[in-house]
Amino acid sequence: MKKLVLLLLLAGSSLAQTREDSVIIRKIYNETLTNGQGYEWLRYLCKQVGPRLSGSEGAKKAVVYTQQLMQKQGFDRVFLQDVKVPHWVRGKKEEAYIHVGKQKISVPIAALGGSIATSAKGVEAEVIEVKSFQQLRELGKEKVKGKIVFFNRPMDPTKLNTFEAYGSAVEQRANGASEAGNLGAVGAIVRSVSTVQDDFPHTGSMRYATGAPLIPTAAISTNAANLLSDKLKESPTLTFYFRQNCETLPDADSHNVVGEIKGSEFPDEIIVVGGHLDSWDLAEGAHDDGAGCVQSIEVLRVLKAIGYKPKRTIRAVMFMNEENGLRGGVKYADLAKQNNEKHIAAVESDNGGFTPKGFGVVGRPDQKAKIQTWKELLAPYSLHEIGPGGGGADIGPLAQSGTVLFGYKPDSQRYFDVHHAPNDNFENVNKRELDLGSASMAAIIYLLDKYGI
Amino acid sequence: MKKLVLLLLLAGSSLAQTREDSVIIRKIYNETLTNGQGYEWLRYLCKQVGPRLSGSEGAKKAVVYTQQLMQKQGFDRVFLQDVKVPHWVRGKKEEAYIHVGKQKISVPIAALGGSIATSAKGVEAEVIEVKSFQQLRELGKEKVKGKIVFFNRPMDPTKLNTFEAYGSAVEQRANGASEAGNLGAVGAIVRSVSTVQDDFPHTGSMRYATGAPLIPTAAISTNAANLLSDKLKESPTLTFYFRQNCETLPDADSHNVVGEIKGSEFPDEIIVVGGHLDSWDLAEGAHDDGAGCVQSIEVLRVLKAIGYKPKRTIRAVMFMNEENGLRGGVKYADLAKQNNEKHIAAVESDNGGFTPKGFGVVGRPDQKAKIQTWKELLAPYSLHEIGPGGGGADIGPLAQSGTVLFGYKPDSQRYFDVHHAPNDNFENVNKRELDLGSASMAAIIYLLDKYGI
Repeated sequence: MKKLVLLLLLAGSSLAQTREDSVIIRKIYNETLTNGQGYEWLRYLCKQVGPRLSGSEGAKKAVVYTQQLMQKQGFDRVFLQDVKVPHWVRGKKEEAYIHVGKQKISVPIAALGGSIATSAKGVEAEVIEVKSFQQLRELGKEKVKGKIVFFNRPMDPTKLNTFEAYGSAVEQRANGASEAGNLGAVGAIVRSVSTVQDDFPHTGSMRYATGAPLIPTAAISTNAANLLSDKLKESPTLTFYFRQNCETLPDADSHNVVGEIKGSEFPDEIIVVGGHLDSWDLAEGAHDDGAGCVQSIEVLRVLKAIGYKPKRTIRAVMFMNEENGLRGGVKYADLAKQNNEKHIAAVESDNGGFTPKGFGVVGRPDQKAKIQTWKELLAPYSLHEIGPGGGGADIGPLAQSGTVLFGYKPDSQRYFDVHHAPNDNFENVNKRELDLGSASMAAIIYLLDKYGI
Repeated sequence: MKKLVLLLLLAGSSLAQTREDSVIIRKIYNETLTNGQGYEWLRYLCKQVGPRLSGSEGAKKAVVYTQQLMQKQGFDRVFLQDVKVPHWVRGKKEEAYIHVGKQKISVPIAALGGSIATSAKGVEAEVIEVKSFQQLRELGKEKVKGKIVFFNRPMDPTKLNTFEAYGSAVEQRANGASEAGNLGAVGAIVRSVSTVQDDFPHTGSMRYATGAPLIPTAAISTNAANLLSDKLKESPTLTFYFRQNCETLPDADSHNVVGEIKGSEFPDEIIVVGGHLDSWDLAEGAHDDGAGCVQSIEVLRVLKAIGYKPKRTIRAVMFMNEENGLRGGVKYADLAKQNNEKHIAAVESDNGGFTPKGFGVVGRPDQKAKIQTWKELLAPYSLHEIGPGGGGADIGPLAQSGTVLFGYKPDSQRYFDVHHAPNDNFENVNKRELDLGSASMAAIIYLLDKYGI
């Protein structure tokens, strides 16, 4: 009987708890949807700051802007962390054409981040089109030597989650140059890893494998990739010309930008919410990842605005250099270790500012089980997918200290239309979708703060 | 023991069934995402046909285009149903300004569908701003007489589902003129029922209540509504001028367009999938509801393409005149009754071509329970919300004969950014989102066909 009473009491208190939680989560959404600031902050970051590749003037401006922005919000502490970052520059705009007989057809390309330049005259050669590294290796040195390899495997349109399709196509961009170089190719052209047919080349990082010859490599728009493939069917001995002027300069000084609200009960337990401040040089970096940055700052603003006093310390972190080095994420985790900071959880938004679907979770089974008990609090906000999927690149290095990672998971259908391309601009972000993301992140931060993990 | 064996056999066969279903549903998605045609059909409907308000040349062209399109798909039967439709025309573009002292500030308005014109000189009067009919009635005749009433209640941004927010704001557009006219107002200006702040007026239908005086009414863009409200605070006696030239002509001849695949086992049981072919005159009607039309045709194409032979008769229906009369939907149901047709289920897509979330269902509890057993087949496709929400306006009249109604429910965040406004254009539709909608509709049609309801 006593047991029964205890159980009923517990059940009653847990129900009251749930009711209180749902009221606070509703407040979070109301505040964000009514007074959301993230969209205007993003407008500034896109239009006044602009592209912000690591080492660039834009990246410097972005550090200053977000630092001042968080100071203005009245967070308890705003500070910078020094980070040395790679400094790759595109230089003069690339030039490329398909050369068939006397015809020269200009096509849009963009050097891949980390690539070397061509010679000043450019490079011109016959083209070998392949869909996989396997196919390339089977062709062998004899057929590849002196040629430009054209990696033309599209993203698989049948994957419902476009990140899966990206994952299985992006090796062409990341490692294609070395695979081609190892067989004697003089250049590598990679089909843009994109979900649409258009004229934008999508850049992104590549790296040369140890010992592989350094050959220049660039992305070509999906329309131009189709054109090149068609032309090759008609004229297998056509040539492709490209010239690019990119360069890797010495590492540059940069920063992570951190703002925090001090915890009232467990100030030494830290919860991070972040995005990355750097972007590619060709775009405003609106979805990738201006969205994640302003959402993270918005999470802290919203918690303050509704009068919620966190028990634990909540930090908004603008990581530097996710795109071509991850130095900011690594540095953040190093400093956390060095300073004996206890990071219980970290939430990253780096999948675009689209309508929320859920969170990927990386943690122990018991932690994941605890998170599942929050599902019904989140379901009214269409956060149905809690669990599957990863955390985020920048927060990844925290995992080794046992931090539970959350990757904010918005709808993925439009992300790779704009990813790393000039159309990743402010106009392609929807205010309500962005705000709903901020609110979803604030809701999970609230639950993590209240219940720990 | 026999019972146990039977149960195991049944369980086994049901498992095998589910496996077969999930294979076919996967095929549906693969076909749609790989070879989807809806997007190009929509391009044609938006760019070559264009706006298609009932009675317009565009509406005529749309009938011919979709009829020929379905004939080309080789459906078993394609036919027209005659429908008499209202024929309202906007006439010459409206003109409007705020008149403060010597200053005239031009503002964008659009006459509401069904409104009368102003006199040729236009109407100018002082403005009474209200947020509700209640507030207007409390002001009473004395204060309203001779004025222009300005209905300025925005959509509630805190509603997660924007259709709810629309539902609680749209009465201003539908009935505002009569509410104002009954108190002696000379015109009614309505804040666009929109989720964004911009310069597009959003039109839509209105109707005069029986016995209410006929006064001209128009929508004003959200930016201009804010401006007018601000100016009124400074200068309560400012005047507003507008002129519009719209007119209701005699009813016109038009058509529903129907294409069908004959059922192999129960040809007399009909399942409808449809959208409405008419749009407002200011827009291409891409999301509203070109999307629903091409998705419906795509459903039949996809089922054919994967070699699925339906047991029941599946019909794609392009309803005419949803926007300002619903005559097509009413006529379709009337003919169904007249011809003793048995419509077991109807699916409508009229909420935009966005990422799928689920289906609203209108039916008996036992029918709803049966549909719930399909949930796990649909969850892998992010169709988590099966049940809540309504059917669709055009299929509504079928309900009285016991047809189960399904309203396709995509993500609602962006719909009212463009609804009934000039930016409801092809460029604002995403191919993958549109295709996923078609596939979701084909999946539910497949289950309805296979298992009945």
